[in-house]
Amino acid sequence: MNYKMVLYIIGQILKVEAAVLLLPLSVALIYGEYDILPAFFITIGAVAVAGLLFSFRRPEKRAIFAKEGFVVVSCSWILLSLFGCLPFFLSGYIPSFVDSFFETVSGFSTTGASILRDVEALPQSLLFWRSFTHWIGGMGVLVFVLAVIPRSDTDSMHLMRAEMPGPTVGKLVSRIRHTARILYVIYFILTVVMMVFLLCGGMPLFDSIVTAFGTAGTGGFGVKNASIAYYNSVYIDVVVTVFMILFGINFNLFFLIITGNVAAALKSEELRWYLGIIAGAILLIALNILGMQEGDFLEALRYAGFQVAAVISTTGYTTADFNLWPTFSKIILVLLMFFGGCAGSTAGGIKISRVILLVKMGIREMRQMLRPREIVTVRLEKKPVEEKVLRGCAAFFILLFAMIALSCLVISFDGYDVTTTITAVLTCINNVGPGLEAVGPSGNFAGFSDLSKLVLCVDMLIGRLELFPILMLFSPAVWKKR
Amino acid sequence: MNYKMVLYIIGQILKVEAAVLLLPLSVALIYGEYDILPAFFITIGAVAVAGLLFSFRRPEKRAIFAKEGFVVVSCSWILLSLFGCLPFFLSGYIPSFVDSFFETVSGFSTTGASILRDVEALPQSLLFWRSFTHWIGGMGVLVFVLAVIPRSDTDSMHLMRAEMPGPTVGKLVSRIRHTARILYVIYFILTVVMMVFLLCGGMPLFDSIVTAFGTAGTGGFGVKNASIAYYNSVYIDVVVTVFMILFGINFNLFFLIITGNVAAALKSEELRWYLGIIAGAILLIALNILGMQEGDFLEALRYAGFQVAAVISTTGYTTADFNLWPTFSKIILVLLMFFGGCAGSTAGGIKISRVILLVKMGIREMRQMLRPREIVTVRLEKKPVEEKVLRGCAAFFILLFAMIALSCLVISFDGYDVTTTITAVLTCINNVGPGLEAVGPSGNFAGFSDLSKLVLCVDMLIGRLELFPILMLFSPAVWKKR
Repeated sequence: MNYKMVLYIIGQILKVEAAVLLLPLSVALIYGEYDILPAFFITIGAVAVAGLLFSFRRPEKRAIFAKEGFVVVSCSWILLSLFGCLPFFLSGYIPSFVDSFFETVSGFSTTGASILRDVEALPQSLLFWRSFTHWIGGMGVLVFVLAVIPRSDTDSMHLMRAEMPGPTVGKLVSRIRHTARILYVIYFILTVVMMVFLLCGGMPLFDSIVTAFGTAGTGGFGVKNASIAYYNSVYIDVVVTVFMILFGINFNLFFLIITGNVAAALKSEELRWYLGIIAGAILLIALNILGMQEGDFLEALRYAGFQVAAVISTTGYTTADFNLWPTFSKIILVLLMFFGGCAGSTAGGIKISRVILLVKMGIREMRQMLRPREIVTVRLEKKPVEEKVLRGCAAFFILLFAMIALSCLVISFDGYDVTTTITAVLTCINNVGPGLEAVGPSGNFAGFSDLSKLVLCVDMLIGRLELFPILMLFSPAVWKKR
Repeated sequence: MNYKMVLYIIGQILKVEAAVLLLPLSVALIYGEYDILPAFFITIGAVAVAGLLFSFRRPEKRAIFAKEGFVVVSCSWILLSLFGCLPFFLSGYIPSFVDSFFETVSGFSTTGASILRDVEALPQSLLFWRSFTHWIGGMGVLVFVLAVIPRSDTDSMHLMRAEMPGPTVGKLVSRIRHTARILYVIYFILTVVMMVFLLCGGMPLFDSIVTAFGTAGTGGFGVKNASIAYYNSVYIDVVVTVFMILFGINFNLFFLIITGNVAAALKSEELRWYLGIIAGAILLIALNILGMQEGDFLEALRYAGFQVAAVISTTGYTTADFNLWPTFSKIILVLLMFFGGCAGSTAGGIKISRVILLVKMGIREMRQMLRPREIVTVRLEKKPVEEKVLRGCAAFFILLFAMIALSCLVISFDGYDVTTTITAVLTCINNVGPGLEAVGPSGNFAGFSDLSKLVLCVDMLIGRLELFPILMLFSPAVWKKR
């Protein structure tokens, strides 16, 4: 374990956080929220000092391996959240440190689960920071660092692999650094486009910006207690629905489209499954809730579409309290929580490409049993998939399930009903946001014990970083100096 | 597909069912339940005729392969249930055919989920038949046929592999036929021993016999509305608890013990995990329900022990309404439903050895990520496990999950709450019996629609036959004549 190098990279990341915190500070100045300035100054000072201390001297041995990649990613995300929650805590707007930490982890991990009973009581600068954590967390902090700081390609790959979602990490162009830059440019442009669309619908500038942040990162923190339902506008509902779906798509496809390869992008097997699942789920739910919309099919489509997009993209905005919907619709939404968006998007969950591979592994086994001597290969996007990747998918699914089970056990101590307990864990580990019953769209996570909140924080990080980086922290083999 | 041979073997199995139905018929004669005799006569006649027709002529081409093995197993289990439900339906004691079928599938699959609101209203002969289906289903009908009818060893292996639970099927002795016989002898002796123990505790003879049937098959149909709680005896609770645990153990271990190899049996990794999980679960639940037992730890242990043994062995008898227990205890019981007993036992669920392999696959993947160039093997019982077996376990877990999801979707149409919906599917597919809320220990499955009941029947068969035989029926490749 190259401790010096790990500290050095984490230091660089913390310096980035200090710089990024200047944005909400500016918002505080613009809106004249002077009472909150000390909290921001102290936070920025603390992060900057920590960052400088950690990255004071460039180590001589610069080589890092998979192990270091995992440790850097998990430790930096934890530290980012520990420092990032200080503005909430120090300003007194969220009096409990655990609550502040929960809210910030929920932000960076793009979950959007909240302990706030009244979001509107927060000053604009804190609301801005809260939503901005989604935007940073969506594409990843390390990807940003890779984009701006020069670094060898093999080192970068270790870092990128540990932070980027999906069963495999592809490079768009030969150099990782350029890949990271392209990803951030696409991300930035899409966010701005969405903001403009929202402005055109009459949404105030501030709300447009934070809503675009929350959608781009597939986070889901709202600035209104009623979430997107507050604006009560079909246009805004449609815009947010479309962009939630867009941000759940593999960014590589946007790159293909930009470089003129539209046909190749549309042929993507993962995209077709993703859109197919969305269309099917919307139709089924719309028919199921038709009665609640007094038979108005378009209204049913509007609400079904928004909630399906919000859950499968793991954004978690709401325009309807789906906790009041029929059980059939609820079960569909719970299943969609698992699915998540496409690999290489900002969404959480298992990811569609993994789901496809898992399904194909199941079918392969049935074929294999009928013809024990044949060798049956699994194909994705028409290419045979390596056994190593399949093994990884299976292990991911198994470990995810194990983590859900363990977390449910701890959370259940709080004595909530079974549905609340299970969906609280599911919505956190899949980075969605709302669950059912007490943690449904009209509920929040304030009632959980501190222990439960911390477990859910681990779940949110586990979900965002796709299990392995966080789980590795508990392995003694990682910490050996060798 | 060798259709003639498939029909021939199914015919033999039906003849066995006709013979076996003479037992409840005798019970009806002993108890003077003459109103029920016509139902039994018609049933026995129908099964016997069908059996004779199917196996009228011994086919010349006698070779069968994996495919035929799966089809024989799944079709014979479905036919056994279709004929086996006739006594309930024809006698009018269960007026709905779907309900009668559900009850019989639940019996053969050793689930123990019931649509009966008042079990005690049934005559003794029907109660006997209902519990006897557990005993037949527990060890398997084909295993029985293999034990009594001579057959080539390769053919037998295809049949045995399709019916016996666990990731791998081991032969105890070189010949399959002898293996099947040994298994049935152990099964029979253990059942008799349990019956004697119950008699010693003052349980009436009839109750002792059917309770022993239900425990041996890990089924759980009771003859009293209050299940085992009716007897209100610490001694009986303890006897049933111990035997539920025993019947969840791999029968190979009993063979080892009988042949004097006690040390080898006790070293079994699966056995240690099984007993460890049981001990841990009992302790946690006992502490959790201590308050409900007014602080009496022994009483808490008694009820926790019984319910844990009942759920992990997938028997499903009850002495306490665990639906009223704290959420923590409920979550533990729901998790235990998945675990199930050991491979090679009569229990349902994923099976402990598969759970061990799944956990080890997850850990292996983490090791592999840290050291990409090493080859890390998974070991069970100190022996390296083939990749093929691991792939099979992963596929099993994936397909089980997919089936649970699909079933929940259909069941949810009935509009029960989320917990009822999910636990109804879990308890059926894992062959346990009771779930939570409306299908909890004090509830039943009567309220579900016919469609839901049929889906749950498929789930119960899927669970008992470990997915593949039933799923194969939906594959066109199986039905090709070639």
